[in-house]
Amino acid sequence: MTQSENSSIQDVALIVGGGPGISSSCARLFSKNGMRVAVAARNPDKPVLETLEKKHGVRRYTCDATDPAGVAQLFDHVARDLGTPRLVIHNIDGRVPGIFRKTIIEADPAMAFETVRNAAFSAFLVGQQAARRMLGNTPDANGAKGTIIFTNASAALKGFPSSGAFAMACHAKSGLAQSMARELMPQGVHVANVPIDAAIGWTQEDGSRAHRLAGTTVDDNMADPDHIAETYLQLHRQHRSTWAVEVVLRPWAERW
Amino acid sequence: MTQSENSSIQDVALIVGGGPGISSSCARLFSKNGMRVAVAARNPDKPVLETLEKKHGVRRYTCDATDPAGVAQLFDHVARDLGTPRLVIHNIDGRVPGIFRKTIIEADPAMAFETVRNAAFSAFLVGQQAARRMLGNTPDANGAKGTIIFTNASAALKGFPSSGAFAMACHAKSGLAQSMARELMPQGVHVANVPIDAAIGWTQEDGSRAHRLAGTTVDDNMADPDHIAETYLQLHRQHRSTWAVEVVLRPWAERW
Amino acid sequence: MTQSENSSIQDVALIVGGGPGISSSCARLFSKNGMRVAVAARNPDKPVLETLEKKHGVRRYTCDATDPAGVAQLFDHVARDLGTPRLVIHNIDGRVPGIFRKTIIEADPAMAFETVRNAAFSAFLVGQQAARRMLGNTPDANGAKGTIIFTNASAALKGFPSSGAFAMACHAKSGLAQSMARELMPQGVHVANVPIDAAIGWTQEDGSRAHRLAGTTVDDNMADPDHIAETYLQLHRQHRSTWAVEVVLRPWAERW
Amino acid sequence: MTQSENSSIQDVALIVGGGPGISSSCARLFSKNGMRVAVAARNPDKPVLETLEKKHGVRRYTCDATDPAGVAQLFDHVARDLGTPRLVIHNIDGRVPGIFRKTIIEADPAMAFETVRNAAFSAFLVGQQAARRMLGNTPDANGAKGTIIFTNASAALKGFPSSGAFAMACHAKSGLAQSMARELMPQGVHVANVPIDAAIGWTQEDGSRAHRLAGTTVDDNMADPDHIAETYLQLHRQHRSTWAVEVVLRPWAERW
Repeated sequence: MTQSENSSIQDVALIVGGGPGISSSCARLFSKNGMRVAVAARNPDKPVLETLEKKHGVRRYTCDATDPAGVAQLFDHVARDLGTPRLVIHNIDGRVPGIFRKTIIEADPAMAFETVRNAAFSAFLVGQQAARRMLGNTPDANGAKGTIIFTNASAALKGFPSSGAFAMACHAKSGLAQSMARELMPQGVHVANVPIDAAIGWTQEDGSRAHRLAGTTVDDNMADPDHIAETYLQLHRQHRSTWAVEVVLRPWAERW
Repeated sequence: MTQSENSSIQDVALIVGGGPGISSSCARLFSKNGMRVAVAARNPDKPVLETLEKKHGVRRYTCDATDPAGVAQLFDHVARDLGTPRLVIHNIDGRVPGIFRKTIIEADPAMAFETVRNAAFSAFLVGQQAARRMLGNTPDANGAKGTIIFTNASAALKGFPSSGAFAMACHAKSGLAQSMARELMPQGVHVANVPIDAAIGWTQEDGSRAHRLAGTTVDDNMADPDHIAETYLQLHRQHRSTWAVEVVLRPWAERW
Repeated sequence: MTQSENSSIQDVALIVGGGPGISSSCARLFSKNGMRVAVAARNPDKPVLETLEKKHGVRRYTCDATDPAGVAQLFDHVARDLGTPRLVIHNIDGRVPGIFRKTIIEADPAMAFETVRNAAFSAFLVGQQAARRMLGNTPDANGAKGTIIFTNASAALKGFPSSGAFAMACHAKSGLAQSMARELMPQGVHVANVPIDAAIGWTQEDGSRAHRLAGTTVDDNMADPDHIAETYLQLHRQHRSTWAVEVVLRPWAERW
Repeated sequence: MTQSENSSIQDVALIVGGGPGISSSCARLFSKNGMRVAVAARNPDKPVLETLEKKHGVRRYTCDATDPAGVAQLFDHVARDLGTPRLVIHNIDGRVPGIFRKTIIEADPAMAFETVRNAAFSAFLVGQQAARRMLGNTPDANGAKGTIIFTNASAALKGFPSSGAFAMACHAKSGLAQSMARELMPQGVHVANVPIDAAIGWTQEDGSRAHRLAGTTVDDNMADPDHIAETYLQLHRQHRSTWAVEVVLRPWAERW
């Protein structure tokens, strides 16, 4: 076991957003690597989160990530229960269903704004609290006080037609991540933006295939959340002499 | 006079945002080129806008550009008074003063959100109304039904430290513009994003120098809003066979 | 006539590359705007260049733009005959025919290297000579000593499959343009890179449609070189307070 | 040991470029992970390469990477001696010393061209041979037939002043990598471009600090080649459902 693998043992990881895809994969992988893991969701009573608790000892928290006081309280509670996180994942898509595939003419303004609030403002709140807490950490063996990772989407790289609200939200998240990286990295906190340029799909415990977006064809050309989680762990373990700020992940057969 | 110059005569231009810099320069230039010009601002009674009306026949409108109903009404009133616009400029910076130079740790969440709402959500509302109206226009000599231009800032190109909220807002605006361009250009509406990578400064009528940001040194290395307005008019007059979607303007001596 | 239009009267323009598309359109437009125009090509005896001379007084020069001594001599001769250029256009595609649509497996290395030499090394040579001469000019009414414009292609924005050599050449040209812009703009020379993200097509004098790439469907979705030339002239006339370094031009209906 | 770690055991790795920094770190790390490692250099008799052979069993090859026949022969010899590579690293900076910090006015054209040939044309040749061989491999446990990694520099991200030739070379390499990625990834070969946005420095066996660029201050703000090598190995081991095409590495305290 190398020093950099050793460095994260007993680290606390907080995952904000609690779905069956990336969040669950992260929770499992981090837990298997010896971290104490917290997952926060609007509704922490979902079966998928209960399973994480039972099988992997993951701690569940209720949080509306668009509420400043709620996010501050989440970090307080995690610190109290597990310790100050060294790894925070913001994993919220944020799209209001009614905004999907709507042209700029059709899109409902309130839904557009809600999408920006859900995806980008929550990233600001989570990033702010993570930064406040992590700056007090002592540097680990890799010279880092902590890692903040923002899951992002293709819409961060390209503004697609009939997707204006999500383009706003994802671009906003990229801008935030880049600003935070420039600000926090010289203070020892690693910030990374990870646009997943793909549909996300995975094999469930019963062997069947699951995927995040309804209507997506289930095939080989999807990003597997277990492998996304591996990249996140690698980013967390990067030595501070070689930090990556943006990593785009896409399946081999994706057209881009 | 060329055909492309001729095409915009009697066009209606609507400028949303009413400061003494770019908005005023645009209003003057568009008016001199024979366009009927409307300017909308939260407070249209500012002396600078009164001067535009008296000297250049510019029509003033009251509008809170973050209010969906208010923006729809603005377009109704302009259509009623002057005709449906063929050129719409979104020229709102949107930063709440208290957010300036605040680190991610210090930034007030409500102010951060207000900045995104002011700058990016208003762009969505203005862009949406502009698109709705312009799609009904007949193509002009350049093959265009209209032009929508978003003034943007350096923060759209780079997330600067201690500027997370503005980075979010400006990146969001870029994402929106790109999505709208992909969607609307094939329908005949030109969409352009113009990040001004500079402080903005100009010479006032009394010969003294003015500039937008307090504390900025007034010198030669600033973007002159009269020349920004020229670029906007050129973008409006581009033939649809050669449309530019993003034009970054910066002064000769700017470091970047 | 505005001051900025006046500033370019009697300017000398040198266009390197002499085809019937962008180069001819530039030569005609610059000439109509009162500039003395030189065109350089490997073979200046093409009918299209003879027509430019007869109808528009354009001066023709022989030059292999990949030969350092030849390019230096070209600038000497133009200076002797017409004066030091204030506007230099590098308009060389450079692709060796045999490299078209070749996969990385199939591409002939010598042809790949020849493509880079033709497109990018010639840009270096032309840019270098242009810079050397222009720095001695006195600033015009816009504060500029001169303008250097590099015509570029979609491959500068995106490395397409089966196009590795051209991706290298076009990316190289972008890197050169950006480096030169950072270096020369503070010294008063405007440098711009103009990727044309489209096939190029135009209507010939007999009313028929022409296009640059064999096999391209002639339709409305092409960049018209006459309008590209307009953008080049506008770039040349931009005031130094608001210079654009990169302008991507694409037709309204292009997918990107 | 996970399946993805297992997948690379007995893999053959070929590193083209043989300095004491990244190449040596890669050779050591790949060797420690069970790979058979070949290093090719113009001069394979350097003490640093002899040490790699003695201590780590690395096989040395002579190769001028700008010579098409030489590169083909290198791949033949490696295949004969060790097997077809599954991991190929192109790690050539390529700058001719005389081109350093030269303005566009001063830069010697022959040196500029040599820089492009050394850095970018060699990347084309190495990439082409790697692709030809790897496409015949059977997919490993991650679904990959092989990985091609191009080490790149800050100049791939930004054209710096007084660095035109290197900007050309590095941008060309990025364009090539992107084109190859779009072409080869759907065929099972992972292609990655890794711009190192930093000076490179490391601690030598005697405890003293070494660095790649003469005149660079040796301090904490440098990219450690051992950690760069870790990223390369991780890229090689990524599952094909989540491949990264470009990863920028920079030290925590770097300004960008």
